[in-house]
Amino acid sequence: MMKIDLQIDALAQAYLTGDLTPADVINDVYDRIEACPDPSIWISLLPREDALATAVSLGVPHPDKPLFGVPFAVKDNIDCTETATTAGCPSFAYQPRADATVVARLRAAGAILIGKTNLDQFATGLVGTRSPYGVPRSAFNDAYISGGSSSGSAVAVARGLVSFALGTDTAGSGRVPAGFNNIVGWKPTRGLLSTYGVVPACRSLDCVSVFAGSCGAAALVKKVSAGFDPKDPFSRPAESSPLVGDTFAFGVLNSDSRIFFGDAGSEQLYNQSIEVLQALGGTPVDIDYTPFAEMAELLYTGPWVAERYAAVGDHVTLAHGDIDPTVAHIVSHANAHSAVDAFKGQYRLSELQRLIDQTWHQMDVFLLPTSPTTYTVEEIAADPITLNSRLGTYTNFVNLADCAALAVPAGFVDDLPRGVTLVGPAFTDDDLLALGDRLHRQLLPAPHIGATDTPVCPSPSLPKSGIPLAVVGAHLTGQPLNHQLTDLNAKHVATTTTSDAYRLYALNNTTPAKPGLARAQDGVKIAVEVWTLSDAAFGRFCAMVPAPLGIGNVELADGTWVKGFICENIALGDATDITTHGGWKAYLALANS
Amino acid sequence: MMKIDLQIDALAQAYLTGDLTPADVINDVYDRIEACPDPSIWISLLPREDALATAVSLGVPHPDKPLFGVPFAVKDNIDCTETATTAGCPSFAYQPRADATVVARLRAAGAILIGKTNLDQFATGLVGTRSPYGVPRSAFNDAYISGGSSSGSAVAVARGLVSFALGTDTAGSGRVPAGFNNIVGWKPTRGLLSTYGVVPACRSLDCVSVFAGSCGAAALVKKVSAGFDPKDPFSRPAESSPLVGDTFAFGVLNSDSRIFFGDAGSEQLYNQSIEVLQALGGTPVDIDYTPFAEMAELLYTGPWVAERYAAVGDHVTLAHGDIDPTVAHIVSHANAHSAVDAFKGQYRLSELQRLIDQTWHQMDVFLLPTSPTTYTVEEIAADPITLNSRLGTYTNFVNLADCAALAVPAGFVDDLPRGVTLVGPAFTDDDLLALGDRLHRQLLPAPHIGATDTPVCPSPSLPKSGIPLAVVGAHLTGQPLNHQLTDLNAKHVATTTTSDAYRLYALNNTTPAKPGLARAQDGVKIAVEVWTLSDAAFGRFCAMVPAPLGIGNVELADGTWVKGFICENIALGDATDITTHGGWKAYLALANS
Repeated sequence: MMKIDLQIDALAQAYLTGDLTPADVINDVYDRIEACPDPSIWISLLPREDALATAVSLGVPHPDKPLFGVPFAVKDNIDCTETATTAGCPSFAYQPRADATVVARLRAAGAILIGKTNLDQFATGLVGTRSPYGVPRSAFNDAYISGGSSSGSAVAVARGLVSFALGTDTAGSGRVPAGFNNIVGWKPTRGLLSTYGVVPACRSLDCVSVFAGSCGAAALVKKVSAGFDPKDPFSRPAESSPLVGDTFAFGVLNSDSRIFFGDAGSEQLYNQSIEVLQALGGTPVDIDYTPFAEMAELLYTGPWVAERYAAVGDHVTLAHGDIDPTVAHIVSHANAHSAVDAFKGQYRLSELQRLIDQTWHQMDVFLLPTSPTTYTVEEIAADPITLNSRLGTYTNFVNLADCAALAVPAGFVDDLPRGVTLVGPAFTDDDLLALGDRLHRQLLPAPHIGATDTPVCPSPSLPKSGIPLAVVGAHLTGQPLNHQLTDLNAKHVATTTTSDAYRLYALNNTTPAKPGLARAQDGVKIAVEVWTLSDAAFGRFCAMVPAPLGIGNVELADGTWVKGFICENIALGDATDITTHGGWKAYLALANS
Repeated sequence: MMKIDLQIDALAQAYLTGDLTPADVINDVYDRIEACPDPSIWISLLPREDALATAVSLGVPHPDKPLFGVPFAVKDNIDCTETATTAGCPSFAYQPRADATVVARLRAAGAILIGKTNLDQFATGLVGTRSPYGVPRSAFNDAYISGGSSSGSAVAVARGLVSFALGTDTAGSGRVPAGFNNIVGWKPTRGLLSTYGVVPACRSLDCVSVFAGSCGAAALVKKVSAGFDPKDPFSRPAESSPLVGDTFAFGVLNSDSRIFFGDAGSEQLYNQSIEVLQALGGTPVDIDYTPFAEMAELLYTGPWVAERYAAVGDHVTLAHGDIDPTVAHIVSHANAHSAVDAFKGQYRLSELQRLIDQTWHQMDVFLLPTSPTTYTVEEIAADPITLNSRLGTYTNFVNLADCAALAVPAGFVDDLPRGVTLVGPAFTDDDLLALGDRLHRQLLPAPHIGATDTPVCPSPSLPKSGIPLAVVGAHLTGQPLNHQLTDLNAKHVATTTTSDAYRLYALNNTTPAKPGLARAQDGVKIAVEVWTLSDAAFGRFCAMVPAPLGIGNVELADGTWVKGFICENIALGDATDITTHGGWKAYLALANS
C-alpha cells in the first residue's frame, strides 16, 4: 500500500473514492505510533481495537461529518471520556464523565481520537521538559526541546502520527511548539473554542488551540469546533472581523525591540518573513514593542499567576511526589499577591490595552517571531525558568491583549525549524488563517508536514473574515464617501467589475453625486470595489445609506454574489444612463474633463 | 418675576423667547441656595459672581449649546477645575488640573456649574450619612436619610436648586437617593459616560450617573455627555440595543424573592408599578432573584471591596482624623482578600452572568423596587452597616451584571417617596429612558420635581434604542422568516403602513414566497411592521437578505423614513401587482381562501 497522507483533505478524497477506509487509516496510524522513536509523546493511547471500532462505526462518508475518519490527538489537560485526565500529573488524574465540548464537537464531525498527549505539567511552561511522563523532543533533533506546554500534541502532528491535535494556549503553549516543529499553531480568539472540560491554567485567559500541518487543516477544524458554548462561562458568541485587504499594513519589531538572544539565524528568518509579507501586498510599519512587552511581563510576574494557584494550588502544595520541581516552585509562589494587586493589575492591563489599541490604528496585523530562539533539553535543565521566559518574549501578551494568533513555519536554522506568528485583533481568525496560509507557502516553497516527507496539500479556498460589500459610486477609493468605509475599519479586498448584467445611472438630486446600479437584460460589466466589514460595521454602514439607494446583492465578474448597492426603480426613470462609461469614476473623469 | 422653571426644556424656551437670560437664572439659583434649609448639600459652591460671569460669557442661545444656560451640580468625587475634589474627605482633597471628561462635555454644551455636592465619603455607602460635611436629609422629611452615596446631588435636584446633577454609581449610589427624593436617577451602561477625572470607588465598576426631574432631562444630558473617551481605560464605544417593543415581557420578583423589611407601603407601590407597566403593554414574568442576589452579595462581601482599598486604602489607613468611622472600617478591612480570591470571584461572576443571561431570554426589562424601604438618620446611626446593606438589595448586582438602570419615582408612603427601577442589558439606555418616562408619568399622574411644586415638563419625544426596520412580507409576524428577526432579539415597535407612495408585487421564484415593495407615482399605503435591531443584529439581518431584495429606506404613513425592504427593478417586470390588497398578509389570505 502507498504511504497514507493523513491530511484532512487527502483523507476525505481517499474515503470518497473508496481508496481507503477509516479502519485502514487507524491501523496505519497505530503502526506509525509503534514505530515512532520518541516514547514521551503520549500520556495515554486508546487501544488500537477501540479506535478501530470507532472507525468502523462511522459508516460511510457524509456531508454532516466533515472530519469523517480523521485521526486526532488531544493534550492531556482536555477531557475525553475514555481516559483519565492527568494534566501531566499522575496524582492529579481524574476520570472525566464527559468529553470537553471541543472534543465532543470533533467526534460528532467524524474525527477519531487516538490518544492524550504529554505536556508541561498543568500547562505551566513553554519548554515541554516539565513532565513526569518524559520529555518529548523536537521532531527534528532529539537533543532539542519540542517546546511546550503542548509538547506531545505538536510532536504528534510533526511526526505524522495524527492529522491534527488539540493543545491549549495561555502564554504561548499553542504557538511555541508549533514554531519548533515546522507546523501550524492556531491560537484562537479567546472564547471562540469552548474551554468546558479543560483543566485551567489561567482560567480567564486559557484557549484551546489547534496544531496542524497547514492553515487549511486548522480552518477545517475551526469550522467544526468553534462556536458559543453555554457551559463555558468564558465562551463568547462568534463574530467575524476583517483583518487585511488586498493591501495591508503589518507591524514589525523596530530595531530597539528586537530580541533574539544571539540567534542570528532566527532574526534572519524573521527578516525574510517581512520580505515575503511585503510580496503578499503588505507594507511593514515599525512598531515599538514596549507596551506589548509590559503586558507580557504582567502575565508572568503580575497577579495573573494567582489563577494558576486557584486552579491547582491546593493540589501542588500537598507535596505529592510527582510535582515537577519548577512547576511546584511557580505555583506554590503564586498566592503571594493580594486582591488589591489583582485589581491594580487589571487597571494597568486596561491602560496598556488603550496603548495597544492605538497601535492597531497603525497596522492591520502584527508579524512577530514565534520564539526568539530555541534550546537543548540540557540547556533548559540548567536554567529552567529564565530560558523558559525567553521563549515567551513574543507570545505572552497575546491572550491578555484579546488577540488571535497563528504560528506558521518560517524556515530552518541549522536544520532546526523556526516560526513566525501573525497576531490580529479578536475575531479576525478566518483572515488570519487565510493570510497565514499564503505566508507559509511563500516562506517554504515546497512545505512538508513537520518532520515528515509529506508535502502540504495544495492550498484550499479558505473562508475570509467579515461581510464583503460591492461599492460602485461615492464610496469608491478617492470618492467623497470612501471615509465611511475606512472609518468603519473596512478592508479593500478587490477592484473588479460586476457580471455583464448591469446598467449604471447618474442619479438626479443626490449630494454628493451618486450613481444607481441596476440589473438589466441588456447589461454590461460595471466597475466596482469590494470591501469587507465586520457584522456591526456592516450594520452601521447599511443604516447610513440614503434613499433611493439600498444594500442588496450584486453578482461579480467571477460569478460570485456579494452584498452591494442597489437602487430603487423610481429614481432611475429620470436618471442619466451612463452604462457605456463602464463605471462611475470613468464617467466622472469624462464629465470633469 | 414669576418663579423660574429650571427644567432644561423650560429654560431653553425662555432663553429663546428672551424671557430670561442665563444671568437671571443663575441669580435665582443662588437665591434659592441661600434660602435652602439644608446646610449639608454642598461641599463647595462656586462664588455667585463666577457663575454669573460664566452665564454672561455664554452669549446667545446656539444649536451647538444644547444645555445653554442650564445650571448643574457635580458630586464632589468628580473633578472640576474651580474647586478641590474632596470625595467627602478634607484630608484627601486635591486640586484637579482638568475637568472630568463629562464635566468638560457638559460645559462645552453650555451648562453652568454651580457647585460640588456632599456624598458618603469615598462614595462608600448608600445612606448619605457618612460625611464630615454633614448629613443631607430627605428633601421631604429631615428626620430621614437622603440616601447615598450621591446624597447632595440628589437633594439639590429634589429641592429645585439645579436643573440636573451628576452622581456616581457603583452599587446603587445613583439610584437609591433618586428613589428617596422623588426624582429620576439614570445609571448608564458601564463605560458609556467617561470616568476620567472621577475618584474611583470600585474602578472596574464605577459609573457616572445623572439625577434629574424627568427622564427627558436625563436623555438630554446623555446626548451631550455620553461617548467614547480614550483617556478612560474603561470607556466603551457606544452601541445601541433595543430594549422593548410595543409589547414586552418584564421581570417581577417572584413571591419568594420579595424583601421589603416590613415596609408594606413600599411593596404596595411596587405592585402598583407592575400594574402600570402592564397597562403600558408589558406582560409580567416571575423571576427568581437568587442569581442576582448572589451577584449582589459578591460585590459587598467578595473580593471587589479590594478595589476600594486600591483606590483610597493608603489614605484611609494613615489614620487621618476625618475618616468616617464606618468608611474606615470598611476600607481598612478591604485588603484581606488574596489575588486567588479575586480571580475566583471573577469565575463565580462569569458563572452567575450565564444564569442571568438565561433570565434575559424570559424578560426584556426587569422591574425592581429601587430600595426595599427607607430609614431615619437616627436608625442608620444605630446600625450603620446592616441597614446600609438593605438599601442595596435590588441595586448591588447591576454594575457587575453589566446592566443599565433607571430609577423613577413610584409614589409615596406616609409622605416619603419610594422609587422603582427599570434594569436592562448594556446599551439599552435610550429605550430605558423612553420607557421610564412613560412609567414615571403613569405612576404619578401629575408629577412634580422632587419636593418642589414645579410640574414635570410635558413628555418630549425621546430617542429610541436600535435601528428601526420596516418589513413587508415573509418577515411579518406569523410569516415563515419572522424568526430571523426574533432570533436576533429584534423588537416589534409598530404595525402601520407605508406612505401612500408604494406598490406591492408578488415575486416569482422566491422561496418562501416574498413580495417586492416599490415606490411609485401611483402608489398606495402598504401594510408594514416596524422592528428595531441593534447595530450588529441589523448587519447580520441585512447580510441574510437575498436578491432581488435589499435594505433601503421606506417612508411610513406618518412621514418618517426608516430602513426597510426595497426590490430590484429587474424582478418586478414579471411579478404580479398585488397593490390593491394593501399588504402581503391580505394578499395571502385571499390567495389561500
